[in-house]
Amino acid sequence: MKLALIGVGLIGGSFAAALRAAGVVGEVIGYDPDPRAVALAAERDIITRSAPSATEAVRGTDLVVIATPVGATRASLAAIADALTPSSIVTDVGSTKASVIDDARDTLGSRLQRFVPAHPIAGGERPGVENADAALFRGRLVITTPTPQTDAEALSTVETLWRAAGARVERLDAAIHDEVFAAVSHLPHVLAFTLVEMIAAGEDAAIRFAHAGAGFRDFTRIAASSPQMWRDVCLANRTALAAELRRYRARLESLQRAIDTSNGVELERVFGVAAAARRNGDSAKGEDQLIRPD
Amino acid sequence: MKLALIGVGLIGGSFAAALRAAGVVGEVIGYDPDPRAVALAAERDIITRSAPSATEAVRGTDLVVIATPVGATRASLAAIADALTPSSIVTDVGSTKASVIDDARDTLGSRLQRFVPAHPIAGGERPGVENADAALFRGRLVITTPTPQTDAEALSTVETLWRAAGARVERLDAAIHDEVFAAVSHLPHVLAFTLVEMIAAGEDAAIRFAHAGAGFRDFTRIAASSPQMWRDVCLANRTALAAELRRYRARLESLQRAIDTSNGVELERVFGVAAAARRNGDSAKGEDQLIRPD
Repeated sequence: MKLALIGVGLIGGSFAAALRAAGVVGEVIGYDPDPRAVALAAERDIITRSAPSATEAVRGTDLVVIATPVGATRASLAAIADALTPSSIVTDVGSTKASVIDDARDTLGSRLQRFVPAHPIAGGERPGVENADAALFRGRLVITTPTPQTDAEALSTVETLWRAAGARVERLDAAIHDEVFAAVSHLPHVLAFTLVEMIAAGEDAAIRFAHAGAGFRDFTRIAASSPQMWRDVCLANRTALAAELRRYRARLESLQRAIDTSNGVELERVFGVAAAARRNGDSAKGEDQLIRPD
Repeated sequence: MKLALIGVGLIGGSFAAALRAAGVVGEVIGYDPDPRAVALAAERDIITRSAPSATEAVRGTDLVVIATPVGATRASLAAIADALTPSSIVTDVGSTKASVIDDARDTLGSRLQRFVPAHPIAGGERPGVENADAALFRGRLVITTPTPQTDAEALSTVETLWRAAGARVERLDAAIHDEVFAAVSHLPHVLAFTLVEMIAAGEDAAIRFAHAGAGFRDFTRIAASSPQMWRDVCLANRTALAAELRRYRARLESLQRAIDTSNGVELERVFGVAAAARRNGDSAKGEDQLIRPD
């Protein structure tokens, strides 16, 4: 199988490396606007050849993996649409899915049925093809979000490839995917970014950061993520994220009222529901049970 | 030196154990409303004797350590006030300081000058005297917040004892202490509790928690903390926390506007300030630099 990799970073590079290691992919043609990423991927034998453009990269390939930031998906799809062979399968790795499906619908025309939207869940690693790892997806979850138009054989091929890379595969409706990740990933990032920015912008930033303990560092670790990548995610999943943020702000308003009026019963109720849910989640994942305040 | 320990848990137990290990304290008289905690502390040789009440525990001791939850400080101080000898020093370990100073002012009368407010920063451990550890405070920070009335010799004695337990000691104004910890500890706990409670209360809780990745688990780890303890902290530091929450909500409102209007420039600005500050903090602490989204 001959693969075109559009966007040569951590995720695309790791997927290509895993597929080559599994022996299911031979040639990999890479394109990235950053020539250093392409050179490094060639040096690490993750790609076998580079192309001067996305259009050129996909010619004659069986599978195209769009692994750019979500905000660049539409342009990449538009660039490759006319160079695809009728049997080519196109897939992506974006953190949001409805926007990517819209992008595909607007750019791929009749080839839309060969597009398989996918989201490998693999956060917490450092970005860049220099950190690509054929073992990155072992035991990880990959979500596919086929549309009614998605070709069953194309879907099955992409899912088989992810399994060959060691991942578990689950299918979800794109809208549900986007709502779920708005709540458990995108909103937490926005909340952490906003807190750190608020403290950083204050006059007393130095003394505050100097006294930040382990709890603060855990809570705000995700605020060290790429600002550009998260701007793209927030814009691409704008509708679901805006709804979750609105719900969250309504709850904070009610918490504010409880604090202002010293309503200990309500505070303990909210904290109790959260602590029970959080500890259940942790026991399922084998983490510690209870943490005392800083 | 003879020590009375009022509240026999992780922090008080660890402090007593450290002082006994350092040889600066001989007898430790413990009182806790939970007889199992007292029995376990005696079994572990952390206390040398138990007392049937806080009042009885302090009679004839040189130093009293109040290590109850913050919400129980006032009652403990009221119980011991009349049993203190004139030379006794009283100190505490509470996460909030202005409220504790108010409690002392209202209960200790002329003995107020012998009260030394202190806050050892040691979060992230499991609670209970069963987890007490003489090494808990090694290299950790302890903040003292003396008032203009605090006796210099009492302050110096308490700080020397914390140093004997291995801690670094820093002095802060109580109001500044409370503002700093409202921002870097109490507010993050409220935000994490509120997010987990919101998801837990939703119809789609199961599918959401099932897709929560490492970022969500880091962000919400502090939501597994004790609801009662955090209710007390929120009430005790109500004024500073309410102000920080209000500031934060104003910033979230502005973020909501940026998302609603697809204002990518503003999103990237906020995220960029946060990521730069967060990474600076991490490099100072030797953590990783950049994390990609789930």
